[in-house]
Amino acid sequence: MSQTVKISEHELTNLGIKAFCKLGLNPVDSAKVVKILVLADLFGLSTHGMSRVESYGERLIVNGINPRPNIKVERVAPAMALLDGDNGTGPLVGMHSLEAAMELASEFGVGVVLARGSNHFGPISPYSLIAADKGYASIIGSNATTTIAPWGGTDARLGNSPLGFGVPNPGGKHFLLDMAMSVVARAKIRNAMKRGEDIPQTWATDQKGLPTTDPKSALDGFLLPMGGHKGYGLALMVDLFSGLLSNAAYLTHVKSWQDNPGEPQNLGHFYVLIDTKFLGSSAWLSKKMQDFASILTESPPANSAHPVIVPGELELSKLELQRREGITLSADTLAIIKKYAGEI
Amino acid sequence: MSQTVKISEHELTNLGIKAFCKLGLNPVDSAKVVKILVLADLFGLSTHGMSRVESYGERLIVNGINPRPNIKVERVAPAMALLDGDNGTGPLVGMHSLEAAMELASEFGVGVVLARGSNHFGPISPYSLIAADKGYASIIGSNATTTIAPWGGTDARLGNSPLGFGVPNPGGKHFLLDMAMSVVARAKIRNAMKRGEDIPQTWATDQKGLPTTDPKSALDGFLLPMGGHKGYGLALMVDLFSGLLSNAAYLTHVKSWQDNPGEPQNLGHFYVLIDTKFLGSSAWLSKKMQDFASILTESPPANSAHPVIVPGELELSKLELQRREGITLSADTLAIIKKYAGEI
Repeated sequence: MSQTVKISEHELTNLGIKAFCKLGLNPVDSAKVVKILVLADLFGLSTHGMSRVESYGERLIVNGINPRPNIKVERVAPAMALLDGDNGTGPLVGMHSLEAAMELASEFGVGVVLARGSNHFGPISPYSLIAADKGYASIIGSNATTTIAPWGGTDARLGNSPLGFGVPNPGGKHFLLDMAMSVVARAKIRNAMKRGEDIPQTWATDQKGLPTTDPKSALDGFLLPMGGHKGYGLALMVDLFSGLLSNAAYLTHVKSWQDNPGEPQNLGHFYVLIDTKFLGSSAWLSKKMQDFASILTESPPANSAHPVIVPGELELSKLELQRREGITLSADTLAIIKKYAGEI
Repeated sequence: MSQTVKISEHELTNLGIKAFCKLGLNPVDSAKVVKILVLADLFGLSTHGMSRVESYGERLIVNGINPRPNIKVERVAPAMALLDGDNGTGPLVGMHSLEAAMELASEFGVGVVLARGSNHFGPISPYSLIAADKGYASIIGSNATTTIAPWGGTDARLGNSPLGFGVPNPGGKHFLLDMAMSVVARAKIRNAMKRGEDIPQTWATDQKGLPTTDPKSALDGFLLPMGGHKGYGLALMVDLFSGLLSNAAYLTHVKSWQDNPGEPQNLGHFYVLIDTKFLGSSAWLSKKMQDFASILTESPPANSAHPVIVPGELELSKLELQRREGITLSADTLAIIKKYAGEI
């Protein structure tokens, strides 16, 4: 673990905008990208936050990502649009998609945007938060570079595609869920290897597709989806909605940004937004959401040191704390941002 | 396992309609209920098929389910409706919701229906199939009687709420996913107990909420959600969309039909339907879906006896087979249907 520094949301945002402007984005687009990445850092999701300026930057420099995309929204039906991200920076395409879907939902009750021509768009929870703050419930997904073998198969043919849900709690804590499909992230397997420990048989397979407890074999093999065939099915459904229906790439058609940094990935996303104003008042929703949370958190904990929590609670508490006291960021990440921003 | 008999789809359907008519439903409503339950049997999901006539029947007789509901659809926004099932038979409320959502989607691209005042509506895959056959992609969910403890909690406060997805493959096999949130069904734990075997620690907790390998303790305790906190989060999101946003009951407000057969459960469902005709032609979709399936099934299997399959493949193969050769049904189930139908 590298050294960490504290930085305010305001300062990190300004530095980030400067960095993306130097990488060729215009100021408005830079601000949209940085909004998502800084929210990720505020949530404590540092692997999906401003640290991404490094990989995004490498690809922007070699034109693997288009810094000045011409993003087009095609309204294929009254409440549904196809969005062409023109290989723009992922969170920029993501923000355009979100905004278009919210606009449709505010008029029709529900709005769907299927995006193609995109790249890694950060975590999902920042989008769900922005939507929930405005009263929208959301179902959002994206496909991803292939890292998972089909259930029972022996080579990587599907991505660890994230799926997220958000339900607003006006004036209180929204319910936010942002999940990838593997049982654990690769980092957890790397940590077990460092400690010389075996891993549970449910985490990963070796190169031959057989379950393994050896972290080294697991890192040479494939992550296993949560719930076995259920997670496999869910990952495919996310890819069908975000990749296939949107006319983006899917499964092995998605190019690896690590192997091919200079080529477009053509990732896809899907956004389903529901405007809760049509379902009832803010007071109605807030009362229900409070009741819903209480029923759960009042279950006596199995371990008194770990009371029951609800989805999004940890991230939203961290956001409040870090908005007040500053964001904990790795010193290395800050140095990279400053380098791109031309400040060192 | 009781003895089984073979019965044609046509004969089972007619018997089923007769049974539900005798239980007080009108013929049109009976046909809708039976359509879903017979599809479940055709898929091989016999626990969610016509065997349910027993529990539905018990409740219809004591007016725990309303045989002649006045189902109302309130169009709260152009592409979204709230549906009041008036405590009707679950699959009847489900079919009304599906039809309303498809109608909205055919006009607006996407349609959302949030249903309240419902009961157990069968499995999800029959709805996804009906939708996919007409070119609609779907996301469908329902809440359920509480059987799962909150993650880290010690009493049942949420249901094993099912979530389903469907994507049409015109002229070929649709992708259908229908999953509950627990790692396994209780039946699997009962079977382990019968065989005198331990169960994996990830399946269930004892009454104190602590993971157990003893099937007896597990049956006294709670099912664990798949993927741990991920499945817990997903179950909550399904309940928020189907129960809370629809103004139905949710979490512990859902009454157990076993403990209170004579009382309305006020279950909720949600239906998000997307009409793929706005995204491209049938030929376009069929070609993509075929390619998507091939990429997966061409992964060399880890075990050559088990080639890679895709979601819905087993169920759709079984449906084809049983449409041709008849449905395998337990003799006990057939006797119950005949009893209700007044034929024995």
